[in-house]
Amino acid sequence: MADAPPEFPASSTTAELEQGERFTPRFDGDGLIPAIVTDDTTGEVLMFAWMNATALARTLETRIAHFWSRSRKKIWMKGEESGNVLNITRMTTDCDQDVVWLQAKITGAGVACHTGARSCFYREILTDSAADPHQARLKRRD
Amino acid sequence: MADAPPEFPASSTTAELEQGERFTPRFDGDGLIPAIVTDDTTGEVLMFAWMNATALARTLETRIAHFWSRSRKKIWMKGEESGNVLNITRMTTDCDQDVVWLQAKITGAGVACHTGARSCFYREILTDSAADPHQARLKRRD
Repeated sequence: MADAPPEFPASSTTAELEQGERFTPRFDGDGLIPAIVTDDTTGEVLMFAWMNATALARTLETRIAHFWSRSRKKIWMKGEESGNVLNITRMTTDCDQDVVWLQAKITGAGVACHTGARSCFYREILTDSAADPHQARLKRRD
Repeated sequence: MADAPPEFPASSTTAELEQGERFTPRFDGDGLIPAIVTDDTTGEVLMFAWMNATALARTLETRIAHFWSRSRKKIWMKGEESGNVLNITRMTTDCDQDVVWLQAKITGAGVACHTGARSCFYREILTDSAADPHQARLKRRD
């Protein structure tokens, strides 16, 4: 029999999960964990994507962001086609270790979004306080 | 019959979804959308949580962050008990409108995390390049 693939460990108590010094990531029912990517200089949120255990391990190993594409059902290295690779300067997890935050420098043309925008978050949500909040407008932020 | 509760509109095309000027948020199969909260001054990620349509509408209406608690199965206004309310200065959505990013000022003691930390993201993930990436360590960032 082949060896089982290596796995991330689990925390045994809430105290260990929240205060411990071992990375024991928690994946959701689909085996995924959300990843927030910010520009390590400006703090701008560049993108949001999902990782499975393999993508997370590869990201930790290479310091280059890899994700799980839910639509294509495969691992992808961000920028493998566009050249806009995310080089990670810092990775952080949250209190219950079910989210990761990547601070990164983007290479190539410096474009994180498939639409050609620098960040996927290029539209501000605007509401008129007198109006129905379900009818908000979007405005490009440049 | 009572009126149906107001709903968010939907985009009819990918072009409208990605480039349009109407906010047409897309909720997942559980009716939820992820929300990233950053400190509007430092850019630090403070927390990550989920909103259902009601929490999102209430957030847009009040400019105070409301979320859906998946464990307690209820809407909560962040800070309703702790006093650490998130006053939103800017809300942004991403290319396919399935994530929201809130830039906020936190009131009260300025503590976003239930553990008492300012941000939920208080531990950096450290890897030894020679070691198994599944055995990463966590170190408090202060």
